[in-house]
Amino acid sequence: MSATSRPARFDIDADLVARCIDEMAQYGAHPVSGMQRLVYTPAWRESVAHYVRWLEHEGLHVRQDAVGNVFGVAPGREPGPSIVTGSHIDTALRGGKYDGTLGVIAGYVALRTLLRTVGQPRRTLEALAICDEEASRFHSNFWGSRAIAGFIQPGEAETICDAEGVSLADAMRSCDLDPSRIAAARRDDIDTFIELHIEQGPILEQKRIPVGVVEAITAIEQVECTVQGRADHAGGCPMDARRDPMIAVAQMVLEVTRLANELGPPAVATVGRIVAEPGSPNIVAAEVRFTIDARYPDAGKHAQLMAHIGEACRVIAAVRGLGFQMDRLTFQPPTVSSPDLVRVIGEAAGDLGLPHLTMVSGAGHDTQVLARRGVRRAMIFVPSRAGRSHSPDEFTAIEDIVEGIAVLTEALYRLAY
Amino acid sequence: MSATSRPARFDIDADLVARCIDEMAQYGAHPVSGMQRLVYTPAWRESVAHYVRWLEHEGLHVRQDAVGNVFGVAPGREPGPSIVTGSHIDTALRGGKYDGTLGVIAGYVALRTLLRTVGQPRRTLEALAICDEEASRFHSNFWGSRAIAGFIQPGEAETICDAEGVSLADAMRSCDLDPSRIAAARRDDIDTFIELHIEQGPILEQKRIPVGVVEAITAIEQVECTVQGRADHAGGCPMDARRDPMIAVAQMVLEVTRLANELGPPAVATVGRIVAEPGSPNIVAAEVRFTIDARYPDAGKHAQLMAHIGEACRVIAAVRGLGFQMDRLTFQPPTVSSPDLVRVIGEAAGDLGLPHLTMVSGAGHDTQVLARRGVRRAMIFVPSRAGRSHSPDEFTAIEDIVEGIAVLTEALYRLAY
Repeated sequence: MSATSRPARFDIDADLVARCIDEMAQYGAHPVSGMQRLVYTPAWRESVAHYVRWLEHEGLHVRQDAVGNVFGVAPGREPGPSIVTGSHIDTALRGGKYDGTLGVIAGYVALRTLLRTVGQPRRTLEALAICDEEASRFHSNFWGSRAIAGFIQPGEAETICDAEGVSLADAMRSCDLDPSRIAAARRDDIDTFIELHIEQGPILEQKRIPVGVVEAITAIEQVECTVQGRADHAGGCPMDARRDPMIAVAQMVLEVTRLANELGPPAVATVGRIVAEPGSPNIVAAEVRFTIDARYPDAGKHAQLMAHIGEACRVIAAVRGLGFQMDRLTFQPPTVSSPDLVRVIGEAAGDLGLPHLTMVSGAGHDTQVLARRGVRRAMIFVPSRAGRSHSPDEFTAIEDIVEGIAVLTEALYRLAY
Repeated sequence: MSATSRPARFDIDADLVARCIDEMAQYGAHPVSGMQRLVYTPAWRESVAHYVRWLEHEGLHVRQDAVGNVFGVAPGREPGPSIVTGSHIDTALRGGKYDGTLGVIAGYVALRTLLRTVGQPRRTLEALAICDEEASRFHSNFWGSRAIAGFIQPGEAETICDAEGVSLADAMRSCDLDPSRIAAARRDDIDTFIELHIEQGPILEQKRIPVGVVEAITAIEQVECTVQGRADHAGGCPMDARRDPMIAVAQMVLEVTRLANELGPPAVATVGRIVAEPGSPNIVAAEVRFTIDARYPDAGKHAQLMAHIGEACRVIAAVRGLGFQMDRLTFQPPTVSSPDLVRVIGEAAGDLGLPHLTMVSGAGHDTQVLARRGVRRAMIFVPSRAGRSHSPDEFTAIEDIVEGIAVLTEALYRLAY
């Protein structure tokens, strides 16, 4: 135990939290289209500098790694691996003030609160701002956390370019970061990672529960389906002589929806993109392509859902004499949180008298990347008003945020002191 | 009756027909993407000049009107209005050798055959090449036949531009045509119009019948439907919390199809274009827009079909709490052929021993524009292999074409001699 005795409850300063949100929202703000703070842009660079000032003001040891992730270290009395908390500091295109940023702020506020209240920890604690998770500038696929986990391939920074043709490597150099040093960003001394994040869904708000403890991040799979028929004149060709892929796709959309509903929550399946070729009102489509995004947190049942979807689509196409192809665009296996960490967080919430819900994350997070290196991990969710995210409409009430940070702080105390 | 007595059967020269098709196919041919002969382009101009040479060689009086329609006149012994036959000489984008062009050739071959066999007609006969029907360069909406019918509004030629920004008026000038004279193209002395055309559908081929007699051109209506829901994170938002327009649109597509099938042939309904916004695989669509093209030859039943479609879509949207809007893009009322002309053509085919089918045109034609001026009208269809049209795959066998032209020639003889 630290020399200083702990209070019954760590006091999270609501005004400080509100001020932090406002201060970070200066960087990349747009009056109409929300927040846009893309990695390695001037707005991003300023937000990182601002975060560094916060950390330095608390006397934390600041380290920026090769890709620009920033760690604020509070060395423990005992040697050994670190307990880390944070999230990403970049935003989605036309995003909001909370996604990612809130976890960065929460880590800072939690460490500040602990250090100011109970002094030096037994185990080393670190606050973390991850440089890029949204991949909203580059197709960079968890760039910051992949650097920490050591998953970036040699040469990646040179080959990935933004919409203007600027490579990741050149963008890094514009921020005085050296792409040749990326491998050095790998950390093998992180033992535990807790990420606080907005839910990005409506469940906590609907149930009026302020805190979610994430027991798993769902599997995320995206496929593109191509249904091939035959273009015909919309006037000349009778209904029974057509091979119209649009009708089959309509059946497929309903079947995909039915299969997700049949599996039940938290299964979700979404058809978000659809294109008909040639796409003329008076021509029966020759081909229709559409995407399916399907998610379930259990690997086996997820695979079964995808198999059922593929089978159903194939049967629909075959019955109508249409070609069918399903190509995988992306697949992220599910990530189960570390049960002992879920228990610690849940107990912290319970002891604080806060209602909390053990739940599944339907979105992907940096946590899952660190999990692949065996880091002990869990997440804390706070409510998203109306489930909004990746939108200027993102909002979480300060009271809810304060309760989330209180749970984070209590859990870190139990782990590190 | 002419001084020359008629043969038992007018002999249509199959080699001449094949040669005419080949000659016309020189203008606008592309080795890969088929025929592309757009109005007022060099290829179009050359094809018109070639047609004029054919007409002049037969001693026909050639007249080109203000928009570039070409008439080859065989003056009758008696004064009075003309009996006209022909079709359009322009092609679709990436079109074929038969759509339109075959009717131009048929008119020329029929008049040539009649003049060479039985001499001067009693009534004036005219072969016609209409400058533009496809609207494949300009959104010109039956430009050629509208000029003949006097339906072009003052100033239209100046305001309609092609994809390069060239106005119809400037394009006309490039072909030595004077846009200020468009009104003079109006003809009030056309009594009868017969258009031979490929079917653009598979019915004649499937039934193995060489000749179709068109008793009506279907009503053609295109609407754009907009279904408004709410964008949500494809992972964060549970299935039962969504307002996903894509699922509703899938139901609408199936309902539109069901209603057309329920009404039965020749009813058709087509969803050929669909767009989801924002169109990202991991975002539940905020809005889906799609077109419906619906066609039926009876005005009352067509209106009923559209009403049922609109009602079904509105109910689907309402049940799901979605916004719904249906905007009309285009509407062409049905055109009934003149019954006496249908009878004359049917009897001509019957007396020639040719199987023929009285049928409905599912596509629009110049005939419907002239019909709005009260011109007596009917069409002759020849088979389209596999129903192909607006495609390099368009094909009709020479034997079928010859039989179609034989029916046209016999009908013209009965009307004009």
